[in-house]
Amino acid sequence: MAQKPSIPKGTRDFSPAEMVGRDYIFTTVKDVFKKFGYQPIETPSLENLNTLLGKYGDEGDKLLFKVLNSGDAFSGIDFSSYNVETEEGTKINSNALSLKVCEKGLRYDLTVPFARFVVQHQNEISFPFKRYQIQPVWRADRPQKGRYREFYQCDVDVIGSKSLLNELELVQIVEMVFGLLNIKVCIKINNRKILSGLAEVSGHPDKLIDITVAIDKIDKIGLEEVEAELREKGIDDKAIAVIEPVLTLQGTNNEKIAKIGEILAASETGMKGVDEIKTLFGMIDSVGISQEVEFDLSLARGLNYYTGAIFEVKAKEFEIGSICGGGRYDDLTGIFGLENMSGVGISFGADRIYDVMKGLNLFPDNVSQSAMILFTNMGERELLYTIPVAGQLRQAGIKCEIYPDNTKLKKQFEYADKKGIPYLGIVGENEINEGGVMVKSLTSGEQNLVKIDEITSYLSSLS
Amino acid sequence: MAQKPSIPKGTRDFSPAEMVGRDYIFTTVKDVFKKFGYQPIETPSLENLNTLLGKYGDEGDKLLFKVLNSGDAFSGIDFSSYNVETEEGTKINSNALSLKVCEKGLRYDLTVPFARFVVQHQNEISFPFKRYQIQPVWRADRPQKGRYREFYQCDVDVIGSKSLLNELELVQIVEMVFGLLNIKVCIKINNRKILSGLAEVSGHPDKLIDITVAIDKIDKIGLEEVEAELREKGIDDKAIAVIEPVLTLQGTNNEKIAKIGEILAASETGMKGVDEIKTLFGMIDSVGISQEVEFDLSLARGLNYYTGAIFEVKAKEFEIGSICGGGRYDDLTGIFGLENMSGVGISFGADRIYDVMKGLNLFPDNVSQSAMILFTNMGERELLYTIPVAGQLRQAGIKCEIYPDNTKLKKQFEYADKKGIPYLGIVGENEINEGGVMVKSLTSGEQNLVKIDEITSYLSSLS
Repeated sequence: MAQKPSIPKGTRDFSPAEMVGRDYIFTTVKDVFKKFGYQPIETPSLENLNTLLGKYGDEGDKLLFKVLNSGDAFSGIDFSSYNVETEEGTKINSNALSLKVCEKGLRYDLTVPFARFVVQHQNEISFPFKRYQIQPVWRADRPQKGRYREFYQCDVDVIGSKSLLNELELVQIVEMVFGLLNIKVCIKINNRKILSGLAEVSGHPDKLIDITVAIDKIDKIGLEEVEAELREKGIDDKAIAVIEPVLTLQGTNNEKIAKIGEILAASETGMKGVDEIKTLFGMIDSVGISQEVEFDLSLARGLNYYTGAIFEVKAKEFEIGSICGGGRYDDLTGIFGLENMSGVGISFGADRIYDVMKGLNLFPDNVSQSAMILFTNMGERELLYTIPVAGQLRQAGIKCEIYPDNTKLKKQFEYADKKGIPYLGIVGENEINEGGVMVKSLTSGEQNLVKIDEITSYLSSLS
Repeated sequence: MAQKPSIPKGTRDFSPAEMVGRDYIFTTVKDVFKKFGYQPIETPSLENLNTLLGKYGDEGDKLLFKVLNSGDAFSGIDFSSYNVETEEGTKINSNALSLKVCEKGLRYDLTVPFARFVVQHQNEISFPFKRYQIQPVWRADRPQKGRYREFYQCDVDVIGSKSLLNELELVQIVEMVFGLLNIKVCIKINNRKILSGLAEVSGHPDKLIDITVAIDKIDKIGLEEVEAELREKGIDDKAIAVIEPVLTLQGTNNEKIAKIGEILAASETGMKGVDEIKTLFGMIDSVGISQEVEFDLSLARGLNYYTGAIFEVKAKEFEIGSICGGGRYDDLTGIFGLENMSGVGISFGADRIYDVMKGLNLFPDNVSQSAMILFTNMGERELLYTIPVAGQLRQAGIKCEIYPDNTKLKKQFEYADKKGIPYLGIVGENEINEGGVMVKSLTSGEQNLVKIDEITSYLSSLS
């Protein structure tokens, strides 16, 4: 019995039609990255587990795909030594055993491998190092709509420079990418130092993470629930009174910046954040960004390693989570032994961007990887006549196909139609005698007998 | 203590310089594939192990990377039930246990996932289906020079057509790819039916695999060793006498085809192979292929699934294994339940092609992803003056960078130099007063003060 084929849950096949759209997005993004002097790197899918473990919190560790050591992975293992006593009796410590038999894992994101790369190759790199990286990542998450176990990340980061010009350029990259893709977005910006300052002036500098996590949820659960959560974390009403006006701040970006400057006046860190935001928005105003840019104090993102700017990009005309996000981290490489390397970067969510473009019908009509013309196949003589014609077109850069089999013309027409090939090149006895090809438009039905030495220029004029 | 970072043996990081070369190869290959109407697909890195197991022989099964089930992979397992008794005492059956705790594996090649894809999506595909696929594969092989545990394959296949036009087009694709890459190659072609016919007329039709495997080694171990190996496999001297002249056949392709036609006259299968070869070489002669094409009877390739044409491509001016190979298989999808789908395809070895191009210095000089110009950073005022100039260049498609930090000019110059940026855009007080930028060539040292509204056309004229 043949197996019924399937793929692991949470993974996907991409058809040619989907690939065309994805390639369009990746090519656009790459071209923009390159315009700003970013260069590509790639890292292996397999990393040593000790490179990955402990970098994403306990939850993240659980979501790592572990790869079994090759060879006799279980040979010589004393399984009983991995037993632990629980209330329900003796149980195996799966985690400990898995770390014994798995030394490698699939990368979880591109940030930690990037940090590892920078430290490992620090002597070959000239800093500031501007790199982009577009590769799949893997997470053993519960699969659900829009959440996959294997998906592409598309990261652009600069490391080794504290200049806020980098932040501005990332905003410009976002502007240019979504401008080219025709997606209207709102670019939200915050600064982690402002959140730290807020924790300070509220009298709970130690509760920064709790405050940040709660604030991050304001869009999802609303003010009341956020306050309830803050209270639960032991933050008193006086402190909440300090935090609240920040959460509900209204006005233009500059009004908001002025207001937060007043609130955080007593916090050195907070005022440093306000200064950074002021400088960045100053540059943004001076350059002019064609997309909406918003100073959003509720923006915190769950990530713990941002230390300066925080970015998030939302599509304005399509309901979906953020399609791009990132921020600055002062010490990403410290864990691998290289201290004081400040970096800032963002990550584009290719899957969501694809969904937005599909949903809003934004892929240009001419985005297709189909051939321009399909030559029919009516037999050996016709075929030998057609092959050099096709060769001539390909030399001129025109994509074309010859139907490989001599079957019913109807079948050949349908093939062209299904593949989205706009023209047919019909070659029969008559065409050979005339020294031409009957070029038929599959959209208009119009057809013309075109001489062989004119077909390249004829098709070029149509495209 | 910080960890000293490293990557698993047999895996690689790719630096920007390497990426540029690899991208150049992949882009060239893709553009050629598209010109012939091939379309891209992608399949997941993770496949169900039952999709992969048994498809690559016992050796291949051992080389599969298995991925541990997520969650408590070992919970509830009775390890003692995986014990086996051996002469050295009780041992664990690692393989059986690993299949219990691992349901998924990393793909080993692109051919089996392609077959799985075709069967799974057969109702959405219009046949003949021409696809290309460029993705990494993983093999738990012993790493050594030029052999990696993670490497890219670059496959192009058509399935659902028996026409020999497909074989011709693959030869044309090889011709065009290596023509564009400037690599002189020899395209070797054989036909599996001829090898079958040979086994038949030698009186050992059942020994086809043994004969094929032995013949495949003629280039490596020579005639004598091949004959010794044939004898070892139980093939008698009379049969070897039939096989020998075939191995040492000399002459032009057409002379060889004529000769093999005589030798195989008694074998129906063999003569079918001769017919196919004759037709294919007839088309090759009629079209004209600018690279060397050789009918090579010793070409067998270790793979067991080819049924018709067999291809292999060797670089002529660089010592390395084959850089491209493939063939026709009559029933690739049968194992997944879709019978009678004949296909033919080839795979380009990106790593070896890279080595050839590097070794022969074939990468064009202008293959670089570096920016064309680096603007210096001498302070805030200069920066704000420069940002719109850079923006204007990027709009015009010119890659450029602004050095993010206001540091010593020497450091900024060195950065440009190391990154291979050919021009510096120096912006100081004087340039601002003049409304221009001092454009300095890092190769010639020549410099010109260029007005801001002329810089786009100035740089365009230089590139």
